[in-house]
Amino acid sequence: MSPSSNYTYLGPEGTFTEAALRTLPEAAARVLVPMISVPAALDAVRRGEAAAAMVPLENSVEGAVLVTLDELATGEPLTIVREVFLPIAFALLVRPGTGLTDIKTVTAHPHAQPQVRRWLAQHLPDASWESSASNADGARQVQEGRFDAAFAGEFAAARYGLEPLVTDIHDAESAVTRFVLVARPARVAPPTGADRTSLVFQLPDDHPGALLQLLQEFAVRGVNLTRIESRPTGAGLGRYFFSIDCEGHIAEARVGEALKGLSRICPDVRFLGSYPRADGVPSSPRPGTADEDFTRASDWLARCLDGRL
Amino acid sequence: MSPSSNYTYLGPEGTFTEAALRTLPEAAARVLVPMISVPAALDAVRRGEAAAAMVPLENSVEGAVLVTLDELATGEPLTIVREVFLPIAFALLVRPGTGLTDIKTVTAHPHAQPQVRRWLAQHLPDASWESSASNADGARQVQEGRFDAAFAGEFAAARYGLEPLVTDIHDAESAVTRFVLVARPARVAPPTGADRTSLVFQLPDDHPGALLQLLQEFAVRGVNLTRIESRPTGAGLGRYFFSIDCEGHIAEARVGEALKGLSRICPDVRFLGSYPRADGVPSSPRPGTADEDFTRASDWLARCLDGRL
Amino acid sequence: MSPSSNYTYLGPEGTFTEAALRTLPEAAARVLVPMISVPAALDAVRRGEAAAAMVPLENSVEGAVLVTLDELATGEPLTIVREVFLPIAFALLVRPGTGLTDIKTVTAHPHAQPQVRRWLAQHLPDASWESSASNADGARQVQEGRFDAAFAGEFAAARYGLEPLVTDIHDAESAVTRFVLVARPARVAPPTGADRTSLVFQLPDDHPGALLQLLQEFAVRGVNLTRIESRPTGAGLGRYFFSIDCEGHIAEARVGEALKGLSRICPDVRFLGSYPRADGVPSSPRPGTADEDFTRASDWLARCLDGRL
Amino acid sequence: MSPSSNYTYLGPEGTFTEAALRTLPEAAARVLVPMISVPAALDAVRRGEAAAAMVPLENSVEGAVLVTLDELATGEPLTIVREVFLPIAFALLVRPGTGLTDIKTVTAHPHAQPQVRRWLAQHLPDASWESSASNADGARQVQEGRFDAAFAGEFAAARYGLEPLVTDIHDAESAVTRFVLVARPARVAPPTGADRTSLVFQLPDDHPGALLQLLQEFAVRGVNLTRIESRPTGAGLGRYFFSIDCEGHIAEARVGEALKGLSRICPDVRFLGSYPRADGVPSSPRPGTADEDFTRASDWLARCLDGRL
Repeated sequence: MSPSSNYTYLGPEGTFTEAALRTLPEAAARVLVPMISVPAALDAVRRGEAAAAMVPLENSVEGAVLVTLDELATGEPLTIVREVFLPIAFALLVRPGTGLTDIKTVTAHPHAQPQVRRWLAQHLPDASWESSASNADGARQVQEGRFDAAFAGEFAAARYGLEPLVTDIHDAESAVTRFVLVARPARVAPPTGADRTSLVFQLPDDHPGALLQLLQEFAVRGVNLTRIESRPTGAGLGRYFFSIDCEGHIAEARVGEALKGLSRICPDVRFLGSYPRADGVPSSPRPGTADEDFTRASDWLARCLDGRL
Repeated sequence: MSPSSNYTYLGPEGTFTEAALRTLPEAAARVLVPMISVPAALDAVRRGEAAAAMVPLENSVEGAVLVTLDELATGEPLTIVREVFLPIAFALLVRPGTGLTDIKTVTAHPHAQPQVRRWLAQHLPDASWESSASNADGARQVQEGRFDAAFAGEFAAARYGLEPLVTDIHDAESAVTRFVLVARPARVAPPTGADRTSLVFQLPDDHPGALLQLLQEFAVRGVNLTRIESRPTGAGLGRYFFSIDCEGHIAEARVGEALKGLSRICPDVRFLGSYPRADGVPSSPRPGTADEDFTRASDWLARCLDGRL
Repeated sequence: MSPSSNYTYLGPEGTFTEAALRTLPEAAARVLVPMISVPAALDAVRRGEAAAAMVPLENSVEGAVLVTLDELATGEPLTIVREVFLPIAFALLVRPGTGLTDIKTVTAHPHAQPQVRRWLAQHLPDASWESSASNADGARQVQEGRFDAAFAGEFAAARYGLEPLVTDIHDAESAVTRFVLVARPARVAPPTGADRTSLVFQLPDDHPGALLQLLQEFAVRGVNLTRIESRPTGAGLGRYFFSIDCEGHIAEARVGEALKGLSRICPDVRFLGSYPRADGVPSSPRPGTADEDFTRASDWLARCLDGRL
Repeated sequence: MSPSSNYTYLGPEGTFTEAALRTLPEAAARVLVPMISVPAALDAVRRGEAAAAMVPLENSVEGAVLVTLDELATGEPLTIVREVFLPIAFALLVRPGTGLTDIKTVTAHPHAQPQVRRWLAQHLPDASWESSASNADGARQVQEGRFDAAFAGEFAAARYGLEPLVTDIHDAESAVTRFVLVARPARVAPPTGADRTSLVFQLPDDHPGALLQLLQEFAVRGVNLTRIESRPTGAGLGRYFFSIDCEGHIAEARVGEALKGLSRICPDVRFLGSYPRADGVPSSPRPGTADEDFTRASDWLARCLDGRL
């Protein structure tokens, strides 16, 4: 298989991103290539050196992954084709033979810290913490003997010859990270009935009051938003672009009409894809907003124009 | 010419409605047939016995002509094809030779009274008033000698052998009546750039709070309403249908989309026509709502679906 | 008792308005004075010659009683203190001894006609109809022998020495007329928990798009409208004032705040009263809009200002 | 002066935050204490060990400073009392005697990199970059001889015995950082006429469609938002709190009423302060939303209740 059919992901090996990617059946037949950063993973796709890239988009505790938001909002267009939700639970990885009382130093990526803080205070109150570049890199440094233990995904243990001493460590009960598989734009796959659509748009002028007008384009068509993030455009304080997700699929009339409404108002709307929801929650359009309602309305309008009342 | 090409109007001869009808060039070649009532004028069209009917729709002082609203809202569908604004100014019609001091009794339709009350108080404080069935009928009774003077349109004088003793009598400076020419449904004539569209719709459920939702279908597309009337549906207090006019033409995208939005929500929407505005005020669509904006948005959506970002 | 404690009503004696007035316990001890017109009934109150006036406001079949709307919207302020719903059902009143087959001529006020048309077609297809000035006046003319039968309220029979030959005649099952008792402004009686509030206001500028903004003043506070009528201001086509009813009482915070919102926007708002609903439907404020929610919000704001967070 | 009257700030010495703090006249008489992190600076205030803390809130290029948003949204309440806008421009600091051609290694905080990237590529294409913990720390390491040059604020030169070799380096023309001075809650200072108000609130239920309803609480009172950020509540994907700024002061009626509206709807609203705008842009309330309009509306309501129409 040519390199151009590879999938890249935010590496190194053993990260949660790799674990998320491996949950996708279509990844089984691909070469999975870890990249040093989100931009590197995405640029490989842009340059045609990979078919798709798996990157984290948001976390229920930490919020949006800003670098992913910003990278998708600018540069050569890319679209999301799949999403994966991964519950965040850490394992404490140690070299074989290490016991809890042997642990004086622990490491992990700084993002892991809020998730394990309470566990640490309770079980290893005296261990000293030092940050590593990624959870997987922390595991590698445990392997090399630099630290006694690393917090990482349990799946990372085998790769670094370590053992999970404790598993399922997490402070927030429902912590979950959302990952997206991103590809070059192509004909959008048809709706599954439980889809999500992602967009980036900039307000038409410089006061965020315009946001209300834009939300109404969704509201009048009964389209619910499931995520909304504002990010600076770089043109000055108070100048934002918005990154949002809404329920439904661009090929569904209510979503398509809302998007067209946005595109008439906003100087720039970037379509980031329609794809199956990882949670499988089916769309339940409000009365009057199903595809057949739109079809019936178009037929009615045609009859009015023709005088067939 | 066959009777079916006649135009009917709210008679009798000499009414303002006839005067309004005669302002239309297309009426010049028609036989104009006075009818005893608005329903009679409209039903002749419905039965194919006339090509169109001229009826009053609203008056800037008296408000909507309810019988016209109600007749257009129910029964076999009809559509408005033209509108005429007629400033309301009365002449005091007398038999030749009559002077102001000879006038002891005056007559006119009760609707005329608020328009001439002030003039009467000033110039004929002692004259006694008696109502007639129509202004034209009042003129006829002056001709017959039953009254000394009648308030009517100046144009009615000749028909009844009377003379306009005083002209341009009106209390409200800007009093105007709006008449509409109504025909059987046919292919709608194309937009002129200064059009109006009329509609009747019923709220989807029984609380008028739903009105807000419907007005938003117009607002998000930048379509202004120029008239709104509520009328009982007959199903109980608080149950209304609405009769409205909006700026623009059904063949213009922003209007067509607003109408489709309404039709998806309301149990019953009746299209009453798109036709040139009598005041000639051109539509000036809000930014993002011109036809080319809708076309551009549709193209953009098609490109999104195709992956041509 | 002095005349100034009388109640006037739209006469003559025997009208539905009188019947509506007599349903009010407080009317039992008053002298009830029929007046020739709605303006006459109201002006007696304005001049202090009566304590209150009963007039019809709207009918579920015919719609608003325009003269009442217009009279309340202008002139010396008056306020509604009670409302009465009266189901509209007619009796066929005849001179004693008259049978159905004896009836060749029938009469009633023109408003009665749509309500009895079907019954007439079925039971008296050959009787000729002539309109009378009021239903009560029709009964009087039957008494005098001018007509064979009159449609009127059953209660009118005794007054004119007639007999109800047939009762409970009505075409629309649920036809009902709403009457209001109107008095000079005074301190508003406290809420009963099932109240209604009436208002008249004019849009801030000349395009009815402003209507949306005004409805939102009600919507954000969860106040439902139960009636909305537009009437011309007389300043030209497309210039309206609105006459509305909403659920709740001016002394309830959500209603008071909505009214204050209106009054800040509209050049002129006229309060027409808060009074018990005739249908007794209790207000059920949306979450966050009960009086205690407003009190709690005010307390919270005071704490914020004081730094007591 | 007791330590409790000190001001803390995000250190170390020589940061832009210190520079922002020194622009405030009230800081001149205070001991300014650098702290290792935003939480450390704020917690000193919470514990009463400092009177106020200066921290960065957002940057026109990087966006919100998430740690500041999150720290203000939770824990013991604090309020913003001042804001400072600081244009971001870097100086290249070197040891005395160093010329541009001598520079092989440069350092700065990672956040500085996007701002100086273009300058570096043009003037020092071969220099190697290594990140430091803060810009000030980079300067210190230049002093110690570990790097040849550091990007930092020009004001940091003197402190570390360095010289600004090049000044006013920035890629984005209008890059600016907004800092806020945060204190324990106290009676809010009166409006200056050019104020801003900050808030944190959580949506009443779990679908962001509720956002529209909340924005309308501001819109109906004509209050513009100048910043809106969503952050995860930690309760799961799609569960947000919002951190916003709006124009105006809590003691101004339109703002106070909007805040009360929010507080009635949202389970939890946290007031983060009303304070003078750094840009001095005066509030220009929409017609009908000035304080006197609210006062007039309250008076009108009182008259309605009293019957003084």
